[in-house]
Amino acid sequence: MSKPLRIGMIGYGFMGRAHSNGYKRVNDFFDLEYHPVLKAVAARDVAKAKDFADRWGYERVESDWKKIVAADDIDVIDICTPNNLHAEIALEAAKHGKAILCEKPLSMDAAEGEKMVIAVEKAGVPNMVWYNYRRIPAVTFAKQLIDSGKLGRIFHYRANFLQDWTISADLPQGGAALWRLDAKAAGSGVTGDLLAHCIDTALWLNGSVKNVTAMTETFVKQRKHQLTGKVEPVEIDDACAFLCHFQNGSLGLFESTRYARGHKALYTFEINGEHASIKWDLHDLHRLEWFDYRDEGPLRGWRSIHVTDGEHPYMSKWWVPGLAIGYEHSFVHQVADFLEAYAKKEQAHPTFRDALETQKVCDAVLKSASSGLWIDVSSV
Amino acid sequence: MSKPLRIGMIGYGFMGRAHSNGYKRVNDFFDLEYHPVLKAVAARDVAKAKDFADRWGYERVESDWKKIVAADDIDVIDICTPNNLHAEIALEAAKHGKAILCEKPLSMDAAEGEKMVIAVEKAGVPNMVWYNYRRIPAVTFAKQLIDSGKLGRIFHYRANFLQDWTISADLPQGGAALWRLDAKAAGSGVTGDLLAHCIDTALWLNGSVKNVTAMTETFVKQRKHQLTGKVEPVEIDDACAFLCHFQNGSLGLFESTRYARGHKALYTFEINGEHASIKWDLHDLHRLEWFDYRDEGPLRGWRSIHVTDGEHPYMSKWWVPGLAIGYEHSFVHQVADFLEAYAKKEQAHPTFRDALETQKVCDAVLKSASSGLWIDVSSV
Amino acid sequence: MSKPLRIGMIGYGFMGRAHSNGYKRVNDFFDLEYHPVLKAVAARDVAKAKDFADRWGYERVESDWKKIVAADDIDVIDICTPNNLHAEIALEAAKHGKAILCEKPLSMDAAEGEKMVIAVEKAGVPNMVWYNYRRIPAVTFAKQLIDSGKLGRIFHYRANFLQDWTISADLPQGGAALWRLDAKAAGSGVTGDLLAHCIDTALWLNGSVKNVTAMTETFVKQRKHQLTGKVEPVEIDDACAFLCHFQNGSLGLFESTRYARGHKALYTFEINGEHASIKWDLHDLHRLEWFDYRDEGPLRGWRSIHVTDGEHPYMSKWWVPGLAIGYEHSFVHQVADFLEAYAKKEQAHPTFRDALETQKVCDAVLKSASSGLWIDVSSV
Amino acid sequence: MSKPLRIGMIGYGFMGRAHSNGYKRVNDFFDLEYHPVLKAVAARDVAKAKDFADRWGYERVESDWKKIVAADDIDVIDICTPNNLHAEIALEAAKHGKAILCEKPLSMDAAEGEKMVIAVEKAGVPNMVWYNYRRIPAVTFAKQLIDSGKLGRIFHYRANFLQDWTISADLPQGGAALWRLDAKAAGSGVTGDLLAHCIDTALWLNGSVKNVTAMTETFVKQRKHQLTGKVEPVEIDDACAFLCHFQNGSLGLFESTRYARGHKALYTFEINGEHASIKWDLHDLHRLEWFDYRDEGPLRGWRSIHVTDGEHPYMSKWWVPGLAIGYEHSFVHQVADFLEAYAKKEQAHPTFRDALETQKVCDAVLKSASSGLWIDVSSV
Repeated sequence: MSKPLRIGMIGYGFMGRAHSNGYKRVNDFFDLEYHPVLKAVAARDVAKAKDFADRWGYERVESDWKKIVAADDIDVIDICTPNNLHAEIALEAAKHGKAILCEKPLSMDAAEGEKMVIAVEKAGVPNMVWYNYRRIPAVTFAKQLIDSGKLGRIFHYRANFLQDWTISADLPQGGAALWRLDAKAAGSGVTGDLLAHCIDTALWLNGSVKNVTAMTETFVKQRKHQLTGKVEPVEIDDACAFLCHFQNGSLGLFESTRYARGHKALYTFEINGEHASIKWDLHDLHRLEWFDYRDEGPLRGWRSIHVTDGEHPYMSKWWVPGLAIGYEHSFVHQVADFLEAYAKKEQAHPTFRDALETQKVCDAVLKSASSGLWIDVSSV
Repeated sequence: MSKPLRIGMIGYGFMGRAHSNGYKRVNDFFDLEYHPVLKAVAARDVAKAKDFADRWGYERVESDWKKIVAADDIDVIDICTPNNLHAEIALEAAKHGKAILCEKPLSMDAAEGEKMVIAVEKAGVPNMVWYNYRRIPAVTFAKQLIDSGKLGRIFHYRANFLQDWTISADLPQGGAALWRLDAKAAGSGVTGDLLAHCIDTALWLNGSVKNVTAMTETFVKQRKHQLTGKVEPVEIDDACAFLCHFQNGSLGLFESTRYARGHKALYTFEINGEHASIKWDLHDLHRLEWFDYRDEGPLRGWRSIHVTDGEHPYMSKWWVPGLAIGYEHSFVHQVADFLEAYAKKEQAHPTFRDALETQKVCDAVLKSASSGLWIDVSSV
Repeated sequence: MSKPLRIGMIGYGFMGRAHSNGYKRVNDFFDLEYHPVLKAVAARDVAKAKDFADRWGYERVESDWKKIVAADDIDVIDICTPNNLHAEIALEAAKHGKAILCEKPLSMDAAEGEKMVIAVEKAGVPNMVWYNYRRIPAVTFAKQLIDSGKLGRIFHYRANFLQDWTISADLPQGGAALWRLDAKAAGSGVTGDLLAHCIDTALWLNGSVKNVTAMTETFVKQRKHQLTGKVEPVEIDDACAFLCHFQNGSLGLFESTRYARGHKALYTFEINGEHASIKWDLHDLHRLEWFDYRDEGPLRGWRSIHVTDGEHPYMSKWWVPGLAIGYEHSFVHQVADFLEAYAKKEQAHPTFRDALETQKVCDAVLKSASSGLWIDVSSV
Repeated sequence: MSKPLRIGMIGYGFMGRAHSNGYKRVNDFFDLEYHPVLKAVAARDVAKAKDFADRWGYERVESDWKKIVAADDIDVIDICTPNNLHAEIALEAAKHGKAILCEKPLSMDAAEGEKMVIAVEKAGVPNMVWYNYRRIPAVTFAKQLIDSGKLGRIFHYRANFLQDWTISADLPQGGAALWRLDAKAAGSGVTGDLLAHCIDTALWLNGSVKNVTAMTETFVKQRKHQLTGKVEPVEIDDACAFLCHFQNGSLGLFESTRYARGHKALYTFEINGEHASIKWDLHDLHRLEWFDYRDEGPLRGWRSIHVTDGEHPYMSKWWVPGLAIGYEHSFVHQVADFLEAYAKKEQAHPTFRDALETQKVCDAVLKSASSGLWIDVSSV
């Protein structure tokens, strides 16, 4: 019989659903020593939290997250709040010796993230950040290919995350639904929300970033604020692009925006190595494009690999070749990997420390954008 | 509070998993009057059934399916056995007044299917066949577009289902894993297994088929049989293709094979109408290709619609635009639709009667292939 | 210095332009023993022929094609007339010992084609039919791959040629521009016009066809005739599909129509072999899709080969890797191959005899469509 | 009868072929007041120039380009030499009042280009630079769409030009074939060779660039030099990327490299506007991807427009819908547009002045890459 691992969730929004689904699905498909038990949800809006708890099967609801963090019957604190609350909750949870799973980005900035890392490492608790895209099977497969050395020396890494949902100037900012447009709650705009995903994957696949030059833009300068009811300046970045050097000598090119008409959630990356190259795109998440120069000359071409075979990462747990899984499965996989590491008393990745590195790149990017200078990531 | 609907499942294979997942997921995402309760599993191999029941949370296991069909605490019988048992179980379940959900194809042939239809209709029980592809959001959306009249008069319908997993002559036939290669268990080869899906969708989207001319082929003539241990003739069709006339005057072209090297589960269809055309492909199941002649002349082109917006069928229940769901969700949707119809005391589709029509086309196809003649579907 | 080969062209329409361009371009790119000299054009409409001759640089114009066929200063007769004139001109040209290049399809039917083959073979003159798609580099490359044995045993061949330009019922038939809709001039509709291309390629790539079952349809039953000014029955086939067995045991599936909304000239083919598969599409004519099961398991995928490297067929004559050539170049290649064969006193392919085989399949297809029976190609 | 325009070409390499083909083809397809006459070729290697002249039909050859520039029987000087000779030849040709067609990039740097602009404008001679990609039909169509206002306010412009032909460290630099790797002959590496194309298109489609931040890299630091026979430092940029602000407020992202394994000549651009977006890719040059937010909600998607209809730019001159033209046709179109402007005594674009703007952006990019600062284009 598998052992229970009792989850206390703080927040109940989009990410609360995605994580809860991960907890509820994982044991149907993965053989694991532990199984998550949905114990409690905390949120200021108790009525909404109650609805959420009823739907997903959480046993109880609290209006004060501190009660959950302190509760004896909770093993894991899952932080699903807006970014500005991550640090406070994490520090408190570490104090109580809880395992901590934090939604990305780790923190409002690197300084805050540093404190969180120190706290969890001092407390010696399991800690992980929900950069879920690492666990899309095609992305995990890309990691395996790179680690195998098949690409040889890396020359180029490029990634972007393009959306188009904030083009209308009538869209307000702030509040429960639109806190991502409010700098006070989100810290930054697309940099922390979208580029952070691209950076996490890049650091994982291609190693550290040395320095960056960046630009940001806010296309719509003011929007009605949901909390104040007044038209207020928009303080987040609507778009952000940067160039960088990686420590391995390769060149990086990153872009993110919410003003790319026609793209819903176009997260793509491409890596060009000496012998081989890789491309991936979230809109067709099972496809890994692969080019291998070692193929017979006239037969060289980009291969469209449908990453759905049993020998592909995670896929033996699901259906049969050719049959797709989706976005939500990346969370199931992350829960599975966390539970497996937990059983072995190891850390699952990305840890807070891993995510801090992403935070530092984000900070360097924003600092470069405001100063107009190249910024060393190590100087942040 | 939603009401329980108690499921008794017969069989525990690939489809048992897909259906069980549908039952367990549906209420997390859909607001429904009923919620499935996983009551019992029946299978000859009790040990395996026990493992299955433990994993998915079924309350008990029976070695004799008749006990489940007769049990007072079961509302719905879900038939997930090889095809040769569908009829017997369905007739018995109808006798006991159970709702019946039967895996496709309905039956070994149309004659057998006819009896099943008579039985469920006489018993007045809810009945449905698991032609799950109707509930892929892009396919449901195609149905909406056709029903809206946007395509105008239909000229052409073409579909295929291409796989490549039986090319090796070393693959055996029969037994638990490979009963699909054994004519005694499966009735036919690709015709009932794969073409039946194409035909179900076609009848739904484009109406009845009038007549057909077909060919079948068995490329590997004999294989070792798992049950007898002997090399025996292969009696199923490895490949099948047919031409047809639809009642609406359009021409149809269908093909299925397990010898199309490079294709895992390439189910595709295309419909050409007077004003507009549609294409779809299971390998990229969220994409619906749409061509509209009414677009401004020089801007005409095939649109690649990423069917993931809230206004697309079923998608408001899941994540946000751009984020994919997968194969398994088609079963969740089918459960949701069944539960909704059940609450309203209506039938969800395809019913046994709908599925019988598919069976008749399959029979006509096989009859044409063996006779070399055009066969009227109404004559089967 | 290269030697002149004097061309006499009969007809000046779309194909007259394509061939003339081939003659004028070939020596700029290919090193050849011969160079075409544009001597004369014959056409009933002398004014139009004069315009054509002026543009392309033909030296003279005749209203009577017989003068050109008999002229001493002409080496090659190029037949670009509607199909119903091919035979008469070819027979006469053979009598005068001219080399003969005939636009496809060879003839109105196989019986007529047979006479043409006998005539050119008895006369011992060079003869070739303009099935130009064989010389698209990606198609020629497909032939090389198949001949190399890389695909192994062939299981499936499918091809189609889809257009949408005759959907409007207001389009008239007949006359100079629309003779392809007039059965008296064209012999058949899409069968001779489009399927003939698919069949020629198939016979070249996959060998002979044994037997066929077919259906044809005429969606618009009557149209105004350009020559009579009256509404007359449409006697051509608007659409045609057939199934077949090849001599090598593989199954064939062919379709052509002018009612596939959204497709301009979608000629595609796909071949599935034991080890590897190939796909091609005229709309992206440089791409050859290639799947090889011998690739390392998890890295298997369809390769999109951009057939533009120097080592690909014909491409060393043109630009550099990545830079496309177009439709018209297939004619340049055919002229180059013809001139090379001419210099060696060999036949370039497809010869009249090769094209007769295509004609026989077309006849079998039309006969099957009218009789509802499987027809042996050898019986035609 | 059309009038002769006498061409004197200097250089005979890859671009000499492309231009010559343009001159020879143009009147077969376009109705024009002028027709080019291939008069003379100048090159130091007279034997090779003789071969070239024979193949293409130039009447004579000179070893000294000054003779051609001064010749009375030459109307147009076409400069196809390495970049370091453009200025000298152009200045001399302007002095003799010749029309001047110069291969791109205009000059070694903006200062040199400035002198060339002054010279041709002072002389009042027709002048044009061969940025041929403007005349790919899909690119010209993109220009029409943008000028129509259909995109609305522009937010983003991104472009890249990716190749992979210099990855091998064994490839030498310099000499006739590889002068593009020699900074003395080429001025810069990918910036002038490839990014210049991207910049020309961008300025044409999206207006002026305000400022840039850039990085360059030379991956292989030394290569054998073909002229000296010695291993020498590589002084060109192997890769270059930059961010920029356009005058219209949109953000730009550009990248070019010869180290992107798997890409032969992947020139792509994408423009995101308020209402609509556009994408294009040289590898599939007939496809224009178009997304229009004004399409009916659930039917929104990227349209793949096959730009081959008669109503698309230039296409009425060629074949029929669906049939492709290629790379070389962009030069035919540029010749046609030049001849038409010439007849009207107008300038065809891009003029030297247009191309100088591109040169300034290139200079700003290289200056930013070496200084690590944002550089205003107006300051160059």
